[in-house]
Amino acid sequence: MNIPIAGAAVTKFGEHWTKTLLDLTTEVSQEAMKDAAVSAKAIDAVFVGNMLSGTLQRQEHLGAAVASALGINRSAFKVEGACASGGLAVHLAIQSLLAGTYETVLVVGVEKMTDFPPEEISSYLMRAGSEEERVAGLTFPALYALLAKAHMQEFGTTREHMAYVAVKNHYHASLNSKAQFPFEVSIEKVLNSSKVTDPFTLLDSSPITDGAAALVLTTKKSLKKVSIIASAVATDTIAISDRASLTELAATKNAAKKAFTQAGIAHKDVDIMEVHDCFTIAEILAMEDLGFCAKGEGGAFIASGATKLGGKKPVNTSGGLKACGHPVGATGVKQLVEINDQLLGRGGKKQVEKAKVGLTQNIGGTGATAVVHVLKI
Amino acid sequence: MNIPIAGAAVTKFGEHWTKTLLDLTTEVSQEAMKDAAVSAKAIDAVFVGNMLSGTLQRQEHLGAAVASALGINRSAFKVEGACASGGLAVHLAIQSLLAGTYETVLVVGVEKMTDFPPEEISSYLMRAGSEEERVAGLTFPALYALLAKAHMQEFGTTREHMAYVAVKNHYHASLNSKAQFPFEVSIEKVLNSSKVTDPFTLLDSSPITDGAAALVLTTKKSLKKVSIIASAVATDTIAISDRASLTELAATKNAAKKAFTQAGIAHKDVDIMEVHDCFTIAEILAMEDLGFCAKGEGGAFIASGATKLGGKKPVNTSGGLKACGHPVGATGVKQLVEINDQLLGRGGKKQVEKAKVGLTQNIGGTGATAVVHVLKI
Repeated sequence: MNIPIAGAAVTKFGEHWTKTLLDLTTEVSQEAMKDAAVSAKAIDAVFVGNMLSGTLQRQEHLGAAVASALGINRSAFKVEGACASGGLAVHLAIQSLLAGTYETVLVVGVEKMTDFPPEEISSYLMRAGSEEERVAGLTFPALYALLAKAHMQEFGTTREHMAYVAVKNHYHASLNSKAQFPFEVSIEKVLNSSKVTDPFTLLDSSPITDGAAALVLTTKKSLKKVSIIASAVATDTIAISDRASLTELAATKNAAKKAFTQAGIAHKDVDIMEVHDCFTIAEILAMEDLGFCAKGEGGAFIASGATKLGGKKPVNTSGGLKACGHPVGATGVKQLVEINDQLLGRGGKKQVEKAKVGLTQNIGGTGATAVVHVLKI
Repeated sequence: MNIPIAGAAVTKFGEHWTKTLLDLTTEVSQEAMKDAAVSAKAIDAVFVGNMLSGTLQRQEHLGAAVASALGINRSAFKVEGACASGGLAVHLAIQSLLAGTYETVLVVGVEKMTDFPPEEISSYLMRAGSEEERVAGLTFPALYALLAKAHMQEFGTTREHMAYVAVKNHYHASLNSKAQFPFEVSIEKVLNSSKVTDPFTLLDSSPITDGAAALVLTTKKSLKKVSIIASAVATDTIAISDRASLTELAATKNAAKKAFTQAGIAHKDVDIMEVHDCFTIAEILAMEDLGFCAKGEGGAFIASGATKLGGKKPVNTSGGLKACGHPVGATGVKQLVEINDQLLGRGGKKQVEKAKVGLTQNIGGTGATAVVHVLKI
């Protein structure tokens, strides 16, 4: 597979109280089209990744709404898969290009969440999970806390291991002008911030965010040099109680296996990654399930500094979901924008030197969906 | 394009108070897989077409939820485009098959709407339209009524023309054991039923419905003989106030143009159709915009009996959205199930003799999205 990225853009992540959801999609799309040096007329289809616009903005039919706001009257789709909506939208856009049906497509991920009380948002987000676990009162922090507790018990993963993920990603965010929380934190600050669900504190958790990200993909000759060389999706049971193990996400493992085969590369070839750190334990699981360290060693691997800027394999140079922010539908698209920018050498203060191959991992729910992309320059 | 339909199924349309949304998707999927003689293990990806499960059933991430309930752990997607969600899901499933990424896919369209007060549903459905028209107080019946009024004024289309669409489709539904309203009505009964929005009465309007439909599509050798030979999507402005004309749906015209080119067929080759008759005027517009009669002549064309069972080109033999029912996300999939069944000669009492080529037209909102498929045996 070789799908060139012609253009990419991301809005500031944070609170956009003076802009509508369609303002964000129009702004980021126009920036991505400008980066690709194409006009709206060149776009054959618009793929929108979004979870909650029906509930929050009372706008369904979001593909047509986003396309209409851009003056594009061709084809348009909304793809939803909870926090993996963005990654799934990229995957399906790629299918339409591989099929030869469309030549140039716009993929836009978006979510606008901060206009609502956090308690409401938390409740809406639970619609990503299983009905049984939702009605049992489990929240997303609680679901991931169960995974963390199991990991601590089985492998000796510590609170400090998890806190280090937040410390690293906040450091990266401090170098990213688009990040929602661009400031550094210490291990002590993470451990002593307010408790969310044992073992997590506030600083183990990704925030509620407004933001959008966009990609222009084309099978026409592109002036840009970054290509998507793998796009893989895998699913697992929607309820964690139906799974054989609480210490791995099988969907990540299966999507990664497919993606490495498609890309024809080995783990050593991957220079940088953006992974789904909705809670700090999730980045530890991602390192293990993607195969960058042995099962149970994710905490120590990250704490060694290997995945920090300057280390061998920088992970989440954007700041990740944790510190750059997590506008649900935008996240899976923004991960590719960050890798694209790094490979093109336009990463700014957080630039990774000589990165040639990058990987993204985007999760829906508690791992019922996983999407892995590999990008290469 | 040649995508074989290996299996197809549809639930009874109507009120399913004793079943959950996932009960409906599991039941219809198992029936379609049985028809295709494949097990869940053969399914590489699940595409779900649905609009309102997030709001109504509080279940987002519906691709993974439907797949999980079926015990399928491969790939899963939810595609949303208002009332065109089902058609768009079929279109994107086809892209993944053409791309060669998946070999056998399950497409499920579903909506479960009758557990809620009609006023609530009406308000949720308005999320398919533009914010400007929604906050101005326009409902869907009112939007289509504006199109009907313009058509009456410009072309002399009459109330009787519209009522005949309902009479014809209720007659077809009376022969369909899966239809929500399987009884005949007279012109007088349509004209004298309670007023909804001038010029529409209750019997000009499609109902609120629970139901699901499923297709198994495969690029592997299939024992069945029906294939999808065209799949085309087009969009238009989401607000009707932004359009040059109120008497045509440009998206239908554009999708039809693409579909006829893809299929390499002429209008005379089409033997049967399922079109989007959410209100009676919509079937009149469909006949014109698909090109089966001249602009302005749709009312007389249908009233001539040409599109009634026994006529030259039967339209909506299922009873259409009008009388078979309109479970929003299911509609676009069910249209293909009906054509598939007709081409295979398993149409039951409503069987059309010697049908070889069939066409479906599925609309989102007030024509912001149109999806046209062509099937052939």
